[in-house]
Amino acid sequence: LSEKFVEVGKSRPPIFAPEVVKGSVLHTEDLRLPNMLYAKFLLSPYAHAKIKRIDTSAAERLPGVVSIITHKDVPKVKYNSSHVPDAMTRVDEYVLSDKARFIGDRLAAVAARDPDIAEEALELIDVDYEELPFVLDPKEAMKPDAPKIHEDVDNNIALHLTNAWGDVKKGFEEADLIFEDEYYTQAAHPIPLEPQTCVAYYKSGKVEIWTSNQVPHRVLPKLSRIFNMPQSKIRIYQPHIGGAFGNKCGLSLEPVAILLSMKSGAPVMMELTGEEMFLTTSPRHPSFTKLKIGVKKDGTIISKEVKTVLDTGAYVSHGTGVLSAAVYSSFGITSLYKCPNHKMDGYCVYTNKVPSGAFRGYGNPQVTFPLESMLDTIAEELGLDPMDLRLKNAVREGDVDPISKIVIESCGLQECARRASDAIGWKMKRGIEEKGKGVGTAWLMLTSGVHPIMDETCGAFVKIFSDGTVVVTMSAPDLGQGIMTTVAQIAAEELGVSVKDVSVTRADTNQPVNRGTWASGTLYFTGQAVRLAAADARSQLLKKAAEILEVRAENLRIESGKIVAGEEPKKSASFEEVMKEVEGGEIIGKATYVPSVSSHIFGVVCAEVEVDVETGEVNPIQVVYAHDIGRAINPAIVKGQIEGSIIQGLGYALTECLVWGKRGEMLNRTFVDYKILTSRDVPKLVPILVETKDKTGPYDAKGVGEPPIMAIAPAIANAIYDAVGIRIKEIPITPEKVLEKIREKKSRT
Amino acid sequence: LSEKFVEVGKSRPPIFAPEVVKGSVLHTEDLRLPNMLYAKFLLSPYAHAKIKRIDTSAAERLPGVVSIITHKDVPKVKYNSSHVPDAMTRVDEYVLSDKARFIGDRLAAVAARDPDIAEEALELIDVDYEELPFVLDPKEAMKPDAPKIHEDVDNNIALHLTNAWGDVKKGFEEADLIFEDEYYTQAAHPIPLEPQTCVAYYKSGKVEIWTSNQVPHRVLPKLSRIFNMPQSKIRIYQPHIGGAFGNKCGLSLEPVAILLSMKSGAPVMMELTGEEMFLTTSPRHPSFTKLKIGVKKDGTIISKEVKTVLDTGAYVSHGTGVLSAAVYSSFGITSLYKCPNHKMDGYCVYTNKVPSGAFRGYGNPQVTFPLESMLDTIAEELGLDPMDLRLKNAVREGDVDPISKIVIESCGLQECARRASDAIGWKMKRGIEEKGKGVGTAWLMLTSGVHPIMDETCGAFVKIFSDGTVVVTMSAPDLGQGIMTTVAQIAAEELGVSVKDVSVTRADTNQPVNRGTWASGTLYFTGQAVRLAAADARSQLLKKAAEILEVRAENLRIESGKIVAGEEPKKSASFEEVMKEVEGGEIIGKATYVPSVSSHIFGVVCAEVEVDVETGEVNPIQVVYAHDIGRAINPAIVKGQIEGSIIQGLGYALTECLVWGKRGEMLNRTFVDYKILTSRDVPKLVPILVETKDKTGPYDAKGVGEPPIMAIAPAIANAIYDAVGIRIKEIPITPEKVLEKIREKKSRT
Repeated sequence: LSEKFVEVGKSRPPIFAPEVVKGSVLHTEDLRLPNMLYAKFLLSPYAHAKIKRIDTSAAERLPGVVSIITHKDVPKVKYNSSHVPDAMTRVDEYVLSDKARFIGDRLAAVAARDPDIAEEALELIDVDYEELPFVLDPKEAMKPDAPKIHEDVDNNIALHLTNAWGDVKKGFEEADLIFEDEYYTQAAHPIPLEPQTCVAYYKSGKVEIWTSNQVPHRVLPKLSRIFNMPQSKIRIYQPHIGGAFGNKCGLSLEPVAILLSMKSGAPVMMELTGEEMFLTTSPRHPSFTKLKIGVKKDGTIISKEVKTVLDTGAYVSHGTGVLSAAVYSSFGITSLYKCPNHKMDGYCVYTNKVPSGAFRGYGNPQVTFPLESMLDTIAEELGLDPMDLRLKNAVREGDVDPISKIVIESCGLQECARRASDAIGWKMKRGIEEKGKGVGTAWLMLTSGVHPIMDETCGAFVKIFSDGTVVVTMSAPDLGQGIMTTVAQIAAEELGVSVKDVSVTRADTNQPVNRGTWASGTLYFTGQAVRLAAADARSQLLKKAAEILEVRAENLRIESGKIVAGEEPKKSASFEEVMKEVEGGEIIGKATYVPSVSSHIFGVVCAEVEVDVETGEVNPIQVVYAHDIGRAINPAIVKGQIEGSIIQGLGYALTECLVWGKRGEMLNRTFVDYKILTSRDVPKLVPILVETKDKTGPYDAKGVGEPPIMAIAPAIANAIYDAVGIRIKEIPITPEKVLEKIREKKSRT
Repeated sequence: LSEKFVEVGKSRPPIFAPEVVKGSVLHTEDLRLPNMLYAKFLLSPYAHAKIKRIDTSAAERLPGVVSIITHKDVPKVKYNSSHVPDAMTRVDEYVLSDKARFIGDRLAAVAARDPDIAEEALELIDVDYEELPFVLDPKEAMKPDAPKIHEDVDNNIALHLTNAWGDVKKGFEEADLIFEDEYYTQAAHPIPLEPQTCVAYYKSGKVEIWTSNQVPHRVLPKLSRIFNMPQSKIRIYQPHIGGAFGNKCGLSLEPVAILLSMKSGAPVMMELTGEEMFLTTSPRHPSFTKLKIGVKKDGTIISKEVKTVLDTGAYVSHGTGVLSAAVYSSFGITSLYKCPNHKMDGYCVYTNKVPSGAFRGYGNPQVTFPLESMLDTIAEELGLDPMDLRLKNAVREGDVDPISKIVIESCGLQECARRASDAIGWKMKRGIEEKGKGVGTAWLMLTSGVHPIMDETCGAFVKIFSDGTVVVTMSAPDLGQGIMTTVAQIAAEELGVSVKDVSVTRADTNQPVNRGTWASGTLYFTGQAVRLAAADARSQLLKKAAEILEVRAENLRIESGKIVAGEEPKKSASFEEVMKEVEGGEIIGKATYVPSVSSHIFGVVCAEVEVDVETGEVNPIQVVYAHDIGRAINPAIVKGQIEGSIIQGLGYALTECLVWGKRGEMLNRTFVDYKILTSRDVPKLVPILVETKDKTGPYDAKGVGEPPIMAIAPAIANAIYDAVGIRIKEIPITPEKVLEKIREKKSRT
């Protein structure tokens, strides 16, 4: 019975799809308030410099300029710009910087009657800089004589985390073979199409904020702390968001907009340009990883040692979160393959570059690339099929995850591997020499659930109107990924109504708390809150129906929009008939979901590529991705998420890379110079859904937003190896790197 | 202990006072949406006419015109524009009229790129009218040969209600004296300073509406019915409202704005001009009342017969509500003075004038003027002090109200009378001939509580943030009267926090239901919902504190922002300490208040006037008003309400009156020609609060918004009689009427 779902499992179009297509959704930048001012940042032209003097008087005299703020105006409260609570991470930022730490560091902000005037005013701000030596490379930055970026930090190491079990030294002694190598990943930018935008309006001790933000409820206490304002006097609304991918997962424009509004008494809009998005907002942490793996001859992994260095740029921001994720989470590097002896060291290092931040995958791609690359090297050395090596070592249902110490409730890895292999024709294609073509695989793991430092609690309301239609109040921002649609399906399923009759609110910090949209956990957590709230509404409804039908509530069920008791002849009442008897004409279900469980999420990528040995160009032919989804609440949305994540993963693997010049200036800060893939670049994509019915999730669902991107790069690298026998250990895999390796290989043979 | 309040009883300034003063509150007309259109109405130039043809083609060709609608485009669903559910009243309106029934009837609407283009387009709409005979006077309208305004209604009587007890015929036979007279009240306009304004944006089967509306939750089901849309797909937001006084208590612009938005695909703003407010929105029902009272020689009232005719204008709208209120509510005319034999007939009659509607007092002023005028006539005839006559007959605590059948829980009438008399110097001034000066009194009664036809249920949420500050979510529109402030005080009191740390939301139909703002019941109902929700939040907080402090929750109390157990040495925890242990960092209290009680509200007006016998001018010297408030949650706000209501009452008594010309055209439709009082016209006002601690209300409070206006006119009329011995039975009491009566009196003597 419980499997006969009406709404769950159906591919409903996203709730706001028609509006997105027609361009009628309202983004933050569509907001117009009376007397609204437009603000612009003054950005540092130096990678590292003392601000000896900053004089805004000439700029203030420009007609149309209303307010200018510099570091002299900002609250003397340091904060962390990520979604991690300030008390749980390093704090090293002020609303505006008192010292320039990268080219693009925010030094002042101007609010003016129009954006052009604000822009013009920037040029009138007179700054005396004292240039300081700077460092761009994290390896250099860790040296004792490197320039000191933050006074209180030695060797520019913002954070060092370790995690270990077993005895790696003994493990390596017992190993038959030991593999050791270094891998590099680059700074790729999430660059959503909607730039970061924020409007703040402060008046009478209260501030209202409209912002394209993934985590409104998490930035609220930060703003409260920075401005020493009661949380109840700050209200954050979330208009429609045009993509985020991690880029909007924390504080960015909000404190500046608030401060300008406080100073001017007017509402203030800040909207970044495309160039400012690149220059001042966060790319994925570049990394280098030393990986050492010891195996038995049969392929059993026996010891593993990992040292990862993440380049956090000028401020720590998400550095704590990303490094913790890499070291302490149930990722591929830690949990996917059983290994009795494990040691991992992670470093988060300051450099004079734009701060790194959150980006789909959040620490996982950086360590999955080394691991999944090396596994192929091991398989080759041992003469094993890379699939078999992985299968042999991979965790299974019932195993205890060494990180979370939780039993793995469900694991679809084996089926993912089988179906991905079948779909790509693994057995036919692998190891076959054919005109530069090859296939490769890479596997991935992550987890959603109880978190060591983050509170994942989510609340929701489900209201039934007097006509029996429903509104879900919840505050998980929909970034385009479809949470508004899937929670509508969950509420509809729970209440036995049509999803067409369900509306869903956008985030608002006056609404029940929400952990925000990140880490592929939005549905896993919010979906449960909505399901519980709907169940609460349902039970209130049935209680009232029981009074009317004069039966016991537990004997009632909902069948195609009616409340029904018994067998034929049935007693029944419509929603409207029952609601007519409810005082006030509405029922509100309420729930707070406090997670006490975790789900382990698995996926298998198989990629087929063609390598042009003359030009070095890598042409992906197809990407198959099999994902353990638990249950797909909305298969079309799940497949859309998978396809988007694969495409972003292909960009990460092949083309996307921020490049800095000698002065520390970002060289490719436009969509022309920074190459994200377009629809013309997309190969055949084959998303495969494996349902394992994980009991911990809402209707047994697991997360999906991030996974594919985590393992696309190693799968491509492994396919290239299969195609032309070269091993690239540094992404993106550009034609230059491929050609160089091909030349190297030729010169060796 | 329970009397030691911290926030309740304090005169806190209104929450949004600084914003109102600075002009930074956001009204509906401040909203700007992308591609927003501006709409204007085509109004009928005839009082009664068939529309033989309406041709919009020329107007449609005007550049900038986007959509035009006429009666041909509107849903064929009749509705009632008041806040009374359609099923409980007569429905006789379409979104636009198919036949003109008054000058100003809405026949078409144009949406254009700017308001000027819309205005211009109106002139290009070509209408063929067939003029019909019309009727402006309700007495004429009730005649059999009068023009028929609605096809299905005979004699233009939209509604006839009666209520009776005892045997009036027998009562009059037993009476020693019988008094009989006719009284007239005029069409006065509530004319709030903010005109009616609405923005609607329909897209993807969903509509969002921003509107200056007193009853968002009540118009929602009406819109759902008109447009056959799920209630969950309609969301109504309430920006700051600049006064209403009943004028915004129902549907007005919303259906037209929605229809234009549906047709154009763009957001549509409608904002009435001052002239349109007069021409097309509702004044108070003009009335005439035949009143007959029989008394014993000692002044005991023994029989009463009332016939009231209300002129509802072209549509019934609030006619059902206002007539029901006059006939079936515990008003002065029915319940204030004990009377064993009572009969009341009420008629609601169509005429070809703008529909009448809700206005502070809602049926009560129309019947209080006759009653309180006649009581003075009776007192004079019997040689009694008018105060004594009233005191002798008035109800007291413990009496059963003949209308509600409920025991009167509290009655401050005697104290009101005593304190008002003392304040004005009744004994010194009454009956003393002094240069045209005189004093008069009038008493009033109304009720808040369980309603025979309206569901008064109200819900609320109270959320405690992790820093211990609070937001109240409730949907009673604040029209300026202070409900946001008083519920903040109630939540603060219940939770033991400072009112400075409490925020309050504006109305939103996604929030818990609210009965809306009308009938002096906003605080009485919503205040209870907020108090219960705060109590729910408090008990959750204390439960968590009990765990932390290891005591029983029932032994905990809140003392100056801390949760405290026992005597010295106290165990205690701050809100923040407790909230830190709450998953999700928030507590949400929830309540739905379903009223099962009523409070009876009383007041005594004493007015002192000076009459210039040469010019007929009446100059009010002072107005004392003593009000049985139960308890004043915020005495300054209560006094503000009383003062506003007195001033509006003086306008009703002396100057305000809509006048129609021979064609049925409204002659005085501007603020220049329609005379509302200004601050320069205001005499000395003496508000007196009598606290009776009515257990049924929130912290024992009763309502206050409307009362004074109900009895100002008769108090002034009675004072004029005391001053110069003339009795005016028709308001407003203009110099012309006074002079005429003075001349009549002179000619008699």
